Amino acid sequence: MKLRRSERMVVISHYLINHPYQLTSLSYFAERYESAKSSISEDVSIIKKAFEEGGIGHIETVTGASGGVVFTPTISKEEAYDVLEDLRKRLSESDRILPGGYIYLSDLLSTPTILKQVGRIIARSFRHETIDAVMTVATKGVPLANAVADVLNVPFVIVRRDLKITEGSTVSVNYASGSAGDRIEKMFLAKRSLKPGSRVLIVDDFLKGGGTITGMTSLLKEFDSSLAGVAVFAVNTLEEHGDLDYQALLKVSQIDVKTNHVQVEIGNIFDSL
Amino acid sequence: MKLRRSERMVVISHYLINHPYQLTSLSYFAERYESAKSSISEDVSIIKKAFEEGGIGHIETVTGASGGVVFTPTISKEEAYDVLEDLRKRLSESDRILPGGYIYLSDLLSTPTILKQVGRIIARSFRHETIDAVMTVATKGVPLANAVADVLNVPFVIVRRDLKITEGSTVSVNYASGSAGDRIEKMFLAKRSLKPGSRVLIVDDFLKGGGTITGMTSLLKEFDSSLAGVAVFAVNTLEEHGDLDYQALLKVSQIDVKTNHVQVEIGNIFDSL
Repeated sequence: MKLRRSERMVVISHYLINHPYQLTSLSYFAERYESAKSSISEDVSIIKKAFEEGGIGHIETVTGASGGVVFTPTISKEEAYDVLEDLRKRLSESDRILPGGYIYLSDLLSTPTILKQVGRIIARSFRHETIDAVMTVATKGVPLANAVADVLNVPFVIVRRDLKITEGSTVSVNYASGSAGDRIEKMFLAKRSLKPGSRVLIVDDFLKGGGTITGMTSLLKEFDSSLAGVAVFAVNTLEEHGDLDYQALLKVSQIDVKTNHVQVEIGNIFDSL
Repeated sequence: MKLRRSERMVVISHYLINHPYQLTSLSYFAERYESAKSSISEDVSIIKKAFEEGGIGHIETVTGASGGVVFTPTISKEEAYDVLEDLRKRLSESDRILPGGYIYLSDLLSTPTILKQVGRIIARSFRHETIDAVMTVATKGVPLANAVADVLNVPFVIVRRDLKITEGSTVSVNYASGSAGDRIEKMFLAKRSLKPGSRVLIVDDFLKGGGTITGMTSLLKEFDSSLAGVAVFAVNTLEEHGDLDYQALLKVSQIDVKTNHVQVEIGNIFDSL
């Protein structure tokens, strides 16, 4: 396909946006768009500048025979703040309080534009970590894990609370469930879903007691894998989380079922950006 | 932010790619990048041409005071064929056969690059339908629904097989489960998760007996909503599906547990592209 320079830049941008964290050789683009490697190289340096000025991400050039370019998406601190502040306001709406002190999150975690932004924020927060896979527990965490894995371009792994015949062999661990942590339950992960030696980022929608995350951490050991970090959409700071180290987008510091009032603040993830 | 034309085209492309099916006025870009509306208009026509030649999608210009541009992503028939043929080969691998005649799909449905392409194929297949939401059943269908919703820029709705306290009020229906359809189970959907009058696309990972999809269709009626279509990742054509109308990416026509052989073909969705 032969294109004009300006058009070529648009299609190369599109390719890089859809293939983050992946090394692509300049020859690939040169062949695909029937252009000299030197022209492609100039295109990439313009795209690089635009991506940086627009807060879209960074393009790294790897030189040598097996070299090429790698796009790392990001989000500017300003844009991240706007996203978090908007989510904070929406989570503070009084009609989200459910009996039992729970908060309704499903609408936020099923809106693609929100998920994309949240994925970029979490990925930026862990930019100094090597991450091979994103892990979560079914069902609510799945869209969040999907969004983060999307930005990082790594697979995501779904831990289940029940056994499904369509998963093949599984490994299971016990974990303490419920706010009081006094109920012991099982969680399962399909044997072939995680490669040994993986560095794993655990994500979840809502951190209350922390039992689920502790359970997933012990599953990692069974797969000879290690924890790269923990990110949650919202944390309930009214509960104890022991020495669990996590990055939260939002912090729920008060839920009053009687007055229908919920107090939400921007979480500690903002300081890590 | 003041940018050169070539850089401006890159950041406008990025914006449009991330806001599909959404009307954005040219003034928005003109203000954001401190340029004349006429320059933005020229940028957009170059991007439009590049998106079309690259098989990325279409840009429609809406004129008038409340006008602007709308980006509709697509996938070329050639690219769709390559994706489907690659998936067909991977699904044909003998080590995917699980006891009971099930097929292991989780690795494919948890890889972001695959999900993105699958989302584009399903969205293209239903390009003539108005779709307000994508519906699926927990857990396996979630990444697929997420991927399609992402391309269509609409929310997705997760039906559950169990009751969760964090969902608030729910509506439930009975459905026939199992291959023989002789087990009656319940499925639940949170009341506030779907607006009445929605046109809904149902997606699922694997179509066997069809009971789950019939169940979701009856849930739609409870929400005064209607079915825009059904898309599945793979269909087992060894089972009867009555008069269920669906688009499948892949078709499993034979599973031989003894010889560890599975026969997979490209599904009927290809003809709809």
